[in-house]
Parts: sequence; structure tokens; C-alpha cells
Amino acid sequence: MTKRDTMKAPPHQVAGHQARDGKLGPLIDAAGHFYKPLQGDERGTKEGAFYTAFSSNKSIPDHIRKFFPIFHGTQLLEASDGSGLHPHLVLQDLVSSRLSPSIMDIKIGSRTWPLQSPEDYINKCLRKDRETTSLSLGFRISGLQVYGSKESGYWKPDKKMIKRFSAEDVRLVLRKFVSSNASAGSGLDPDCCFASIVYGGSNGILAQLLELKAWFEEQTIYHFYSCSVLLIYDEELVLEGRSCGVEIKLIDFAHVVEGNGVIDHNFLGGLCSLIKFLSEVLEAPKCCTTKACPQVEEKNLDK
Amino acid sequence: MTKRDTMKAPPHQVAGHQARDGKLGPLIDAAGHFYKPLQGDERGTKEGAFYTAFSSNKSIPDHIRKFFPIFHGTQLLEASDGSGLHPHLVLQDLVSSRLSPSIMDIKIGSRTWPLQSPEDYINKCLRKDRETTSLSLGFRISGLQVYGSKESGYWKPDKKMIKRFSAEDVRLVLRKFVSSNASAGSGLDPDCCFASIVYGGSNGILAQLLELKAWFEEQTIYHFYSCSVLLIYDEELVLEGRSCGVEIKLIDFAHVVEGNGVIDHNFLGGLCSLIKFLSEVLEAPKCCTTKACPQVEEKNLDK
Repeated sequence: MTKRDTMKAPPHQVAGHQARDGKLGPLIDAAGHFYKPLQGDERGTKEGAFYTAFSSNKSIPDHIRKFFPIFHGTQLLEASDGSGLHPHLVLQDLVSSRLSPSIMDIKIGSRTWPLQSPEDYINKCLRKDRETTSLSLGFRISGLQVYGSKESGYWKPDKKMIKRFSAEDVRLVLRKFVSSNASAGSGLDPDCCFASIVYGGSNGILAQLLELKAWFEEQTIYHFYSCSVLLIYDEELVLEGRSCGVEIKLIDFAHVVEGNGVIDHNFLGGLCSLIKFLSEVLEAPKCCTTKACPQVEEKNLDK
Repeated sequence: MTKRDTMKAPPHQVAGHQARDGKLGPLIDAAGHFYKPLQGDERGTKEGAFYTAFSSNKSIPDHIRKFFPIFHGTQLLEASDGSGLHPHLVLQDLVSSRLSPSIMDIKIGSRTWPLQSPEDYINKCLRKDRETTSLSLGFRISGLQVYGSKESGYWKPDKKMIKRFSAEDVRLVLRKFVSSNASAGSGLDPDCCFASIVYGGSNGILAQLLELKAWFEEQTIYHFYSCSVLLIYDEELVLEGRSCGVEIKLIDFAHVVEGNGVIDHNFLGGLCSLIKFLSEVLEAPKCCTTKACPQVEEKNLDK
């Protein structure tokens, strides 16, 4: 049995190229590794170079490093499209230990292109930034899945729908993401059952984003264009009254450039906007009475 | 004697259209008013509408309102170019009580155009944003004057030079702005004599910018495109050991649009970048020994 036989397409990928139907995409193994094929153009090289430099950069504090996937080097692997050996980044699989992860991929920044980009690339990105919420909100949702129940499975809107999200859609989806009735169709008001546990609290998503924000107010090493923050939690853990494994991770570094002593004001602005959106869900969850979410309220009363 | 006869072009204007040689520009009177001619296209109307709405908006806290010029309405006045009556915004003259104001006009935001702008306007602004430091730094210097002494007067670099400022030039100019040897030619290292008094301290520029930043992290009423923050202080007051009248003011609201419940992530990002630049001057003023600036050190020892 070759290594390739034990690998499969990641079941919880919500954005990016997918290893399905013989297409080139990432793979995972049972040991918790995520193999991301190096993109053919210079993007692959750049992302590899970023991970290599970042891993050995001693000025990154540990409380920030934890927001990045662990990097295990690059490796030649049989590609998912059967085209033969292809170089892959070997990364930490961020959801390998999860039962039923709810995940949202949010591309941060109103501008997704570095200054030094070729003119046609700038035009392509600028058009996308204007068509999506990037320019208006400072971020855009690139993908998501929200766990409903064993019966209903995940709510995972398709990519075309996500690309058309308006500011109001984003507001709604950020509520649905922490609701127990997200998969029950769009007719229901999101109950925001998990808002206080997932977004709030001292270890919640907001607290982690604020930690990241504090770093971005200071760090002048990197500018992260077209980089995403993943929001992850596990609803089954929440319902069991255990830690709900809330975490944020930064991913996608093919367009990271040197900061040259300037803060990444583009990323920081978008991050602050996202923080404000999430704060508003917490301030007015609109529901979350004991009646609406008895199972959560009972077990998490002291949190 | 008509009202027009008591008016003159403002002596301390550092950016924008100027009322000189029969051109249309702002005027001031002896009572501390600044008359800004309404720009002919819709910009004038928009700026007037902003001032009117802002003046009566009760949700603006007083500690933020103080960063905006006081608005006294609009008035038909004989224009500075002699073309007859023209509508003017009547504003507070921000430097009428100053002896020898040092002033810097900094346009905040990496993007100076609102989303809703016409395509040719976007292209024009985007080109300027890329040619100047707006895109790279999140702000650009639009004009400045630094007081040297009664003999040397002001150092006031010309507009063409300012437009070409690189990131390194900006770093240097932010040091020169608080130096006693700024006007003595570019050969000298700026002594940063006034850095701790002007940028630092509980009432200094950094403290005021941080107050503004906190508001921008929350406010979702307005988005301020192409708006400037003025940094103002009075060197003669510093040398006399008195309060040096350090203040910041926001100006130029022809491109303010409604925030629609979203924070102004573009302004906020640029503001954070400027804050970082000024912090660095404070952290490493490179000079400011008692030897370099005896007159300041003696009188401000306890500050």
C-alpha cells in the first residue's frame, strides 16, 4: 500500500481548489497532515517561502504563532488528479480531531492584491473586490459549513451563492454560523444559540481576533494580501457541555509580501470591521433565551 | 468698507486651492472665521451637507466633536477671484490664535474614493493613491509648514516635492516636523527636539489620535474618504515653556458617505499606520539630548 492510498480529499474543506473528480486539490492523511499542492505559477513558490521564513522567524510571539497552521516542509507526492508526482506543502490538518466542525473562511482586507502586482492581476482582483463585500466591508466570506445535526448534516451554501453575498447576507450568515437552526432553511430567524460560547467569552473567537488585532497594530514584517481567517468550532462539543474547541487560524499565504516597516493597515482595517460585525451579534443575539436553546443554557450556565 | 475688504487669504494654508493671484480659494476674517468656497460640482454641496448633518448629530460625543472645525453655516460672499458672489462654508479658522503654527495636512486612508464613484473618478484617484504613499502607507502627506525661527521663517516644501514623497521621505518629514532644525536645509539630521512634547504626553498628538482611533473602531455613521487630519502646534509656545497648543483637526469632507452600519475600515487602517509611524519617532527620536535642545529640556523637565 503506498502512502497515496491512505490519503483522501479533506471532507471539511469550505473554499479553494478541491481534490475531487480527478482535479488537483489538497489531500489529508490519518496522521493529521494536510497536503496542499503547490500552485503551478509563482504563487506556490511564494507560499512555500512564506511558511519556511515564518517557521524560523524568532520574532513571532508564541501567542500569535498558534494562529497559523504548523508547517512540516514540502514533499513530492502523487497528485490528487493522478498526474504524477507534484510538490505539496505539508501542513497541520486543522480539523482532523473534530467531530462535526462548523467552519467559516473569511478573506480579510478590502484590497486583495499587493502593490507590486502586474496590471492585469490588479484589475482582476479589484473587480472581484468590488463585486463582493471586500471593498465595502473590508472582508468577504469565501466559504462556510455549519453543522446542524446527525440527521440534517451540514448547511454548506454553494460558492456561487457565497460570491453574491451582500452586506446584509453577511450579517445574517454570521448569525447563522452560531445558530442551532442554520440548516433548517433560510425561512427561520437564526437563534444564535451558540453566539455567547463561540463568539464571546475569554477564549472565544472575538477574544482571539482581538489578540490578533493587537499584533497587527504593531507588526511590520508581513503584509497579508488575500489571506483568510478560518473560524472553527464544534457544535457537538458545545452540546455536550465541553469546551467547544473554538479557534481561529490564518491560511493562504500565496500573496504575502514584506511589510518594510509599515503595518498591514489593509488587513488590520478589515479585521477591525469583522470584529465589529461579530460584536454586534453578541450584543443583540435576538434570541438565545433558555427556551430557545435549553440544552446549551443548562450545561453552560457558569461560563 | 465692505466685509470683503477685511478679508484675506489665510497665511497658513498648507494644502488645497489657494486664494492668490485672483484664484478662487478660502478667505479668513479677523474674527476667526475661515470661508471655504463651495466647490462648483457636487463636492461643495456634499461638504455643506456633511457639516450641516454632523453639526446637529447628537450621537457624536463631545470629545470627538472637538476634532472637527466649528461650522457657522453657509454664506454668499464676494469670491476671492473677483468673480462676484459665491457661496462659502463659514468655518472656524483653526490657526487664527496662533503665533507661528507648524502644520501638517495628512490625507488618511489607502483608498481616497467612495465605492459609489464614477469610473473615471475612481481611475484618477486610484492612480494618485498608487503614485503617492496612500496605498503603501495608508496615508499621504498633502502639505506642511514647519516653523524655524523669526529669522528663517517656515520650512514649506513645494507641492510637487510633497507629491513625490516616498515612505522614507515621510519618515524623515515626520521627524522634521518636530525638530528645531527643520528649516536649516535637508543636510542636517532632524533633532526631534519637540517630539516628546508634540507627539507624546497625555495631551499630545498621539494621545489625540488614539482617542480618534477608539471612535473609529465603533462609529458606523460616516466613511471619510479623502479626508485629512491636520497636526498643529506652536513652536514659540513650546520655547516659552507654555502649553504648545498641540491639536489635531479633521478637515475636507467633500467625499464623506454614509457608513450604513459598517466601520470606516479604510480610514481606521490608515490612522493606525500613522499612529505607528509617530510612535516610532517617539521611541527613537535619535537625538533630543539636553545638549541638542537645552531650551526645551530646561523648561519642560517635569512634563
